[in-house]
Amino acid sequence: MNLKIPEKEFQRRIKNVQKAMRNKDIDLLIAHSNEADFANVRYLSNYWPIFESAGVIIPAEGQPALLIGPESETFARDTSCIKKIYKMIEYRESAQPEYPDIEVETFASVFKKVYKKKIKRICLSGYQIFPLPVYQGIKQAVPEAKIITDDDIIASERVIKSRWELDMLKESFRIAENALEKTLKFMKPEMTELQVVGFIEKELYLGGAEYEGHPQYVLAGKNSNHAIGRPTYTKLGRNNLIQLNIGARFAGYSSSVGRPVCLGKMTDKMRKLVQAGLDLHFKTMEWMKEGVNAGSIARRFFEYADKIGAGKNILYGPCHGLGMMEVERPWMETHSNYILKENMTFQVDTFLYCDEFGLRWENGVVVKKNGVIPLSDRFMKIIELEI
Amino acid sequence: MNLKIPEKEFQRRIKNVQKAMRNKDIDLLIAHSNEADFANVRYLSNYWPIFESAGVIIPAEGQPALLIGPESETFARDTSCIKKIYKMIEYRESAQPEYPDIEVETFASVFKKVYKKKIKRICLSGYQIFPLPVYQGIKQAVPEAKIITDDDIIASERVIKSRWELDMLKESFRIAENALEKTLKFMKPEMTELQVVGFIEKELYLGGAEYEGHPQYVLAGKNSNHAIGRPTYTKLGRNNLIQLNIGARFAGYSSSVGRPVCLGKMTDKMRKLVQAGLDLHFKTMEWMKEGVNAGSIARRFFEYADKIGAGKNILYGPCHGLGMMEVERPWMETHSNYILKENMTFQVDTFLYCDEFGLRWENGVVVKKNGVIPLSDRFMKIIELEI
Repeated sequence: MNLKIPEKEFQRRIKNVQKAMRNKDIDLLIAHSNEADFANVRYLSNYWPIFESAGVIIPAEGQPALLIGPESETFARDTSCIKKIYKMIEYRESAQPEYPDIEVETFASVFKKVYKKKIKRICLSGYQIFPLPVYQGIKQAVPEAKIITDDDIIASERVIKSRWELDMLKESFRIAENALEKTLKFMKPEMTELQVVGFIEKELYLGGAEYEGHPQYVLAGKNSNHAIGRPTYTKLGRNNLIQLNIGARFAGYSSSVGRPVCLGKMTDKMRKLVQAGLDLHFKTMEWMKEGVNAGSIARRFFEYADKIGAGKNILYGPCHGLGMMEVERPWMETHSNYILKENMTFQVDTFLYCDEFGLRWENGVVVKKNGVIPLSDRFMKIIELEI
Repeated sequence: MNLKIPEKEFQRRIKNVQKAMRNKDIDLLIAHSNEADFANVRYLSNYWPIFESAGVIIPAEGQPALLIGPESETFARDTSCIKKIYKMIEYRESAQPEYPDIEVETFASVFKKVYKKKIKRICLSGYQIFPLPVYQGIKQAVPEAKIITDDDIIASERVIKSRWELDMLKESFRIAENALEKTLKFMKPEMTELQVVGFIEKELYLGGAEYEGHPQYVLAGKNSNHAIGRPTYTKLGRNNLIQLNIGARFAGYSSSVGRPVCLGKMTDKMRKLVQAGLDLHFKTMEWMKEGVNAGSIARRFFEYADKIGAGKNILYGPCHGLGMMEVERPWMETHSNYILKENMTFQVDTFLYCDEFGLRWENGVVVKKNGVIPLSDRFMKIIELEI
C-alpha cells in the first residue's frame, strides 16, 4: 500500500489552522479525538488513538504538539507527523489508571513549551466529544484565559478534499464495493447477521482496509428499520429485507456502501418502498452540483418524497458530509444554508422506514461543477438474490 | 445463543445504584457512554450506542430512563431493558446534525419526568469520557443544583461479577481462544498484520462474538513494542516477534488473550525476554487470591522483575480489571490499596518491551478464596511456529 497522505499535506493543514486562529484572535487551539471519533487528531497528525484518547495543541505561531495517554508513546512516535509528543494523564483510558511509575506532563508545563506569549484565548475543537477532565485540566492551568469552543476552524479545512484525500476515499470505496460483491454471493437464509459481519470484515482487511469504516450493518427483517443499529444473532431468512452497510477505512478515510437486499422475492410493500428509496436517491444526486444551496436539496428531497408517497417514511435529511468519519460535517438538512463547492464529498444516504422494515441506499459522491461523481455505484437496482 | 443477562439482573443493578445514591445524598445520577466506551450504559440498560452516544438517568427513587440520540429510537426500543427512552440533541453524532424534523427532549423536560422532588445534587458517572455538551445541558437545566462526579457508585457494583457475568466472560474467552488456535495455524511470513486481523475477525464472529472485544492486535517486529498500537501493512516475516491480542465481545463482556508468537525460531534475546514475561505472568497469578492487597501484588511484580533482570522492560503494573470493557477499573498498581475479593475479575497483563520488540502474555482470571481460576490458559509456553 503506497497510497498515503504526504507529510507536507499535514504541514499545510496546520498552517491553515494557524492562519484561521490568528484571524479569530486565538492563542492556542486544542483538538480532541477518541477511539470512536479519531478524525481531528488524525487529520492534523496522522495519529489515531486506541484505548486512550488524544489531542493536538496548536499555537498561533510555532510548532504544534501531540498530546497522548501514558501508554501510547512508542505507537505515537512511529505514527505521528507531529514530532513533539507529550504524555498526559488527561488522555488516559476510561478505567483511570494512575501510572505512578510513568512521568507525565501537565497542561501548565505543555503550555510553556508550545507558546511563549501570554495565553488570552484558548479554543477547544471537537466539542461534541470533548471530555470534562481535559477541559478542567486546561482551565486549571490558565484560569484567567478565555476558553471558547469552535469546530468551524478545522471543519472548514476538512470540508473541501485535496487530491490526496479523494484518492484515499476512492480506495476506501473500492474496498467496500468489492466486499459487497462477495457478500452478495456469500449470504444464505440460515446465516445469522453476525456471521455475515465476520465475512465482510475478512473481505475488507483482505482488500486492503486498515480498519472498519464503521461497525458493519447486516440488519434483517424488523432490525432493518434501525436507522442506527447493531447486528444480532437473527437469521437472514427468506423474503426479508436485509440492510447491508459496508464500510472500510483506508489511510484515515472511511466509506460506506448501503444496499437493501432480499434472499428470494420481496413482498410488494417492500419492493415499492425500496424502489421509492432508489428514485429519491438518484433524484438527490441529480440535484447536487457546485453552487447549489444545500437546504434547497433537502427541501426538494422532502417534497419529492411526499409526491411519491414516501414522506411519512423519512427520518432525516438526504445527505451528510464524508471524509475521515463516515459521517462528518456538514449535514444537509431542510434549514441548511450553505453552498455546495467543488470537491466537497457527501454520503447520499437515503433511509426510509416503516414498522416492519427499513432500507437505505447509500453512496459517496464528489461535488463537481456540473454534478457529482459517485465514489460507489454498483448494484444500484432492486437486489433479489436467488436461494 | 441463549446466554444473556436476565432482566431481573438489570433491575437489581439499578436498585443497588439507587441505594448507594441515597447514602451519598444524590438526587439524580447520569451515566455516560459512547461507541468506544459503552460499558456504563450497557451495564444499566443493555443498550450500547453506535455513532451517537447515550446516557442513563437514575433518580434516587422511581424509574430510570435511557437517553439517546435522535436516530437511535427503533434500535433502543428493541434493545433496552429500560423502557422510558428519551431522544436528546446532546447525544447526537459528533458531526452535529440539527434534525429540524425530529422532536427531542431537553434536560429540563426529562428531569421533570423522572423526578418529582427538588433536585439538589446531581452525580455524573463516566468522568473520563463525559462530554461538555451533556455537562452544559445539565447545568443549564438546573443551575442551582450541585453537580458532582462519582465513578465509584457504578464501579463498585461492576467490580464483583455475578454468576451471569462470569458465564458471559467464559463464553467471550472461549471464542477468543478458539480464534487464537486457528490463527496460529493460519499465519505465514508473507502475510501482513492486517490480513491476519481479517482472519481473526471472521473467526470471532463465526465463533459467536457480537463484536470485537477491542481492535485486534497483530503487531510484528518493531511494532510489537507498542503497548498500545494499531496493526499495519507490515509483513509478519520470519524470526520476528509477533504480538497477538485477540478479543471477543459476548453479551456485553469482553475478553483478550495475548500471546507473543514467532514464525520460525526466536533470537536468544527474544526468547529470554519472552520467558521472563511468562515467569512473571505465572508468578502474578500465584500471588492473587481473596484477601490479598492489590498494591502488594504490584510491588512483588516489580521486585521479581528486577530480580530476573526485566525491571527496565516494564511500563506499567501487572493487572487491570476486566468485565464489559477489556480494560476497566480497578487497576493494580504499586500504590493500589484495596483488597482482592471473590469474583473480582482481572486481566493478568504482562507487557515487557525493549527498543526492538515487545511482548505481552495476557489472560483473564476470576479471584477465588485460594487463588485464581483462569478464563484462558492455552498456548502458555514459548510459541515458535514451523514455517
